[in-house]
Amino acid sequence: MLLNEVRLKQCISAARLDTVIATTPENVTYMSGFWALPQWIRRGPQAYVVWPAPDKGTPEIIASTSTLDLVADQEVWVSKVRRYGEFHANVGSSTTVDRANERHLQLRDLPRHGDAIEALIAALEEARLGRGRIGIDEAGLPPGYQETLRAHFPNASFLPATALLREVRAVKTADEIERLGQVAQIAERSIQAALAVAQEGATEADLARAFHVRTVEEGALPVLGCIGFGERSALMNVQPSDRRLRAGEIIRFDVGGRFRHYRADIARIATLGEPPPQAHRLQQALLRGVQHACDIIRPGLPAAQLFETVVRVVQREGIAHYERDHVGHGIGLDGYDAPTLSARSTDVLEEGMVLCVETPYYEIGRWGLQVEDMVVVRQGGVERLTQTHDAITRVPS
Amino acid sequence: MLLNEVRLKQCISAARLDTVIATTPENVTYMSGFWALPQWIRRGPQAYVVWPAPDKGTPEIIASTSTLDLVADQEVWVSKVRRYGEFHANVGSSTTVDRANERHLQLRDLPRHGDAIEALIAALEEARLGRGRIGIDEAGLPPGYQETLRAHFPNASFLPATALLREVRAVKTADEIERLGQVAQIAERSIQAALAVAQEGATEADLARAFHVRTVEEGALPVLGCIGFGERSALMNVQPSDRRLRAGEIIRFDVGGRFRHYRADIARIATLGEPPPQAHRLQQALLRGVQHACDIIRPGLPAAQLFETVVRVVQREGIAHYERDHVGHGIGLDGYDAPTLSARSTDVLEEGMVLCVETPYYEIGRWGLQVEDMVVVRQGGVERLTQTHDAITRVPS
Repeated sequence: MLLNEVRLKQCISAARLDTVIATTPENVTYMSGFWALPQWIRRGPQAYVVWPAPDKGTPEIIASTSTLDLVADQEVWVSKVRRYGEFHANVGSSTTVDRANERHLQLRDLPRHGDAIEALIAALEEARLGRGRIGIDEAGLPPGYQETLRAHFPNASFLPATALLREVRAVKTADEIERLGQVAQIAERSIQAALAVAQEGATEADLARAFHVRTVEEGALPVLGCIGFGERSALMNVQPSDRRLRAGEIIRFDVGGRFRHYRADIARIATLGEPPPQAHRLQQALLRGVQHACDIIRPGLPAAQLFETVVRVVQREGIAHYERDHVGHGIGLDGYDAPTLSARSTDVLEEGMVLCVETPYYEIGRWGLQVEDMVVVRQGGVERLTQTHDAITRVPS
Repeated sequence: MLLNEVRLKQCISAARLDTVIATTPENVTYMSGFWALPQWIRRGPQAYVVWPAPDKGTPEIIASTSTLDLVADQEVWVSKVRRYGEFHANVGSSTTVDRANERHLQLRDLPRHGDAIEALIAALEEARLGRGRIGIDEAGLPPGYQETLRAHFPNASFLPATALLREVRAVKTADEIERLGQVAQIAERSIQAALAVAQEGATEADLARAFHVRTVEEGALPVLGCIGFGERSALMNVQPSDRRLRAGEIIRFDVGGRFRHYRADIARIATLGEPPPQAHRLQQALLRGVQHACDIIRPGLPAAQLFETVVRVVQREGIAHYERDHVGHGIGLDGYDAPTLSARSTDVLEEGMVLCVETPYYEIGRWGLQVEDMVVVRQGGVERLTQTHDAITRVPS
């Protein structure tokens, strides 16, 4: 299961909530296993998961009639479903119906609510939460929906819960770590596929195509594909262009796809031919910062302390003027899960968090260098999810 | 240019707005050419375009410091930029700086605002809009931001503008139609690539991989990939599984990627070997519906009338019980642009709209059939953006 149910219950209890309502695609998928296609590829379509405190009711999914086929066909662990809206379909004459179609037909027989907010109101009414403390994942609701809820339940307290659910998601389950490990290694192999076409005259777009093709071949989908050559590697979000590769140039990858809904985000540096000696020295300093992070990461370590230490190590190891806003972040269904590894972060590392630890360094007009790896926080230290090394990869020219 | 500037000005004028503020990724890219990576791949990161009425000021982009490299490197037609937030980077020692890095350095020298909302407030203040009528693309703002604006400008009127900008985007420019034509044909060629691996025992996932690989090879990114066999073709949002193909089965594609930010959404039906005669008859009825739509589509035609006519044609041509909620929609930066081709739509077709015209038909437990094509509304009728036919494609078994 993706959901860390123990942690969810703890967070609901600590916030003294009677129920929590997921509204963003990440939280809906996380809490129920239901991946609502329209909600993920566009903004506007609504799907919810209502998760009451123990003894306050039964978790339920609220889905549009047009997405019930996905509820039926996916590994969903929330069995109660409420539907809204019309979507015409007919019943086939076949006598042998598979499980997904059979479940789909059952779900279509459920009572129908007019729209998403009406269905949500009905769910809260049935759970008798009119005077309850209701945590609502405020980030996923269209403007006006929260006002409608407040007007309908004047005696209830509505509390923002997007941050709370982000905190729940911060400590991963074994199933999540399994997916994150797979997508991290898909990203590594996709970098290798891109480097296989790196030669004098190849374009950034050529490498990006090879990268994404490999990602797709491995069953993942492209998301992040920043690949830049030479001075373009200094553009932090560099989008692949027709710029051609020349001998001795830096190639910076800051990349990662999505595999079974889970994101990767890693960085690697390569050069065509011999790396410039200074680039090598800079990359070593950045690498020492990440290595030191991996040496000291433990449950209980404050993220702000990790940040300060890593920046100091990079400064000491060769980039005296090194400055950063953060040295990493959590990763999961979202590319920036909790914790945030920054000076002002109040997060504390916990066992089972999955972190992107990174030390990027940009010299605008010249080059960008970067180390970024994905690791799991374990009691005894870190477990790396990647397998390739972080020094500069030399591609024969 | 993507932006239909004449239409934007007309809509701003008709709504008597002093300015309009784009906040969603689609509208920011549409109005400025600025594609803000973090805003597109996650929810939360903020980028805006402020577009005043003529004589009320100069259009401007509001971007985080960490995305100024994208402003610098993209074909952006809004030259005024306001930045917010910190993002550390150094200036390289190179003497030969390319255009993107040079522009990036210039943009980083702009005054810095603390955060996105502070930058937006400053923009409105400088334009002296404290008593103005301000149209705001409400769908892209995090909860609380609009309240902050209203509190800061108590004498201004804030009006929702997401629907207005959707209306502006409904009539495409030549550049947009060019991209939509390319992505439609990429989807067609990707279907052909998928059918090239369709044989007894191939899985839905095999076809999906071949489909997406081709999409990536053509320079696009995967978005929609509903590919289902046999009874699974009746799942409207079918996600490719390990289900194996058998002779005589329906293969339904409802698919399309994103090319230079523009979406495709087309459907095709194939069978391995001879199609079941009834499937052939049903598909012909669905096809006649779309063909009739293409015969009558003209500027000035009410969308609701188009809907009624198409449903009647499908009923008359062989599916007497045919019912639908819509028979299509606009497409562009979003997969569901205006207009909506439904019974309750108040939209009227205009020259330059790009429509997905579709007649899906689902028999749950048995099969799903579908015709969906992309067409441009022209004075003399429709211009099809696809090239392949809509009858059932027979794959040799």
